[in-house]
Amino acid sequence: MNFLEERIQKDGIVKEGNVLKVDSFLNHQMDITLFEKMGEEFKRRFAGKKFDKILTIEASGIGIACIVARHFGVPVVFAKKTKSVNIDGEMYIAEVESFTHKCRNQVIVSKKFISEGEHILIIDDFLANGCALQGLISIVKEAGASVDGIGIAIEKGFQVGGRMIRNLGYHLESLAIVDAMDAETGSITFREQ
Amino acid sequence: MNFLEERIQKDGIVKEGNVLKVDSFLNHQMDITLFEKMGEEFKRRFAGKKFDKILTIEASGIGIACIVARHFGVPVVFAKKTKSVNIDGEMYIAEVESFTHKCRNQVIVSKKFISEGEHILIIDDFLANGCALQGLISIVKEAGASVDGIGIAIEKGFQVGGRMIRNLGYHLESLAIVDAMDAETGSITFREQ
Repeated sequence: MNFLEERIQKDGIVKEGNVLKVDSFLNHQMDITLFEKMGEEFKRRFAGKKFDKILTIEASGIGIACIVARHFGVPVVFAKKTKSVNIDGEMYIAEVESFTHKCRNQVIVSKKFISEGEHILIIDDFLANGCALQGLISIVKEAGASVDGIGIAIEKGFQVGGRMIRNLGYHLESLAIVDAMDAETGSITFREQ
Repeated sequence: MNFLEERIQKDGIVKEGNVLKVDSFLNHQMDITLFEKMGEEFKRRFAGKKFDKILTIEASGIGIACIVARHFGVPVVFAKKTKSVNIDGEMYIAEVESFTHKCRNQVIVSKKFISEGEHILIIDDFLANGCALQGLISIVKEAGASVDGIGIAIEKGFQVGGRMIRNLGYHLESLAIVDAMDAETGSITFREQ
């Protein structure tokens, strides 16, 4: 097991309905030392790639993306889920609906912050059905930029998002892939990587 | 002028209605190198203080808080503005209404992540009327912890939040205090610190 799998094993809590709670270190309370290790690991996995910018989505992607950005020396842009008074001017807006109809989201980025020809690394905390991720990818494409890497902390390998994204040819790296969870026993099975 | 005031002068845009747009480096696109300098400066301004945790609020406080946290070696907790499916168990919920009735917010933190006796540093990107900040302070007090410092990137000195918080005796440090702005000329006047 790698450092993130160990941490999930130790502090993650499996709940009914395929819910994995990691709020004590990842997405409510955030362990910055752990995020630093994640940054180092993404740097290793995307070795040799040159990115211009990291793109993430509010709220829980932001902390990880900012620490990861230190390891690549690039700025971070975070997509918003609702149109706020603080975004004006031209915007990219992706309307994303999942095949399960369980999520329907707007993903919004100001056109100023993704430019044609840029090489983008997308970072997020979770990948399950891939709803938010699809919106981010569609915005990068619309901007004429390219998604050269996707870095995820925890992928739910038993849901469809990761497979679909890999089938489309994207370079997706998930630091931990959960293939099965059992709420009764609390056991978590990670995919060998 | 300090480094942040210089950056605001250079890249900030003054709009009608006392709006200061800093979305190219602070709260949509984020300049991580600038955030590092902010972390160093907060460390200097809160020299000798020992914090257990940084508390911030989604979404635009998170990036700054995570980079600042590296300089203090502590974890970050971010408050949520709406009750999400990912928070269960006991929660602190502050209902905050501003005296101008321009903001009414819920600020939510899981009780697991702020404990009695802890020393808390609150970090946020903006302070204007102080609506969100009041909610954060009230939650820390309810938890029996203490707000030993408040670090803000940009304070709108012509609005009431900063004065009120200082009057209450809190140690508030704002890296840039804007005392006046003119949308017509684009000029920004900073308070001498």
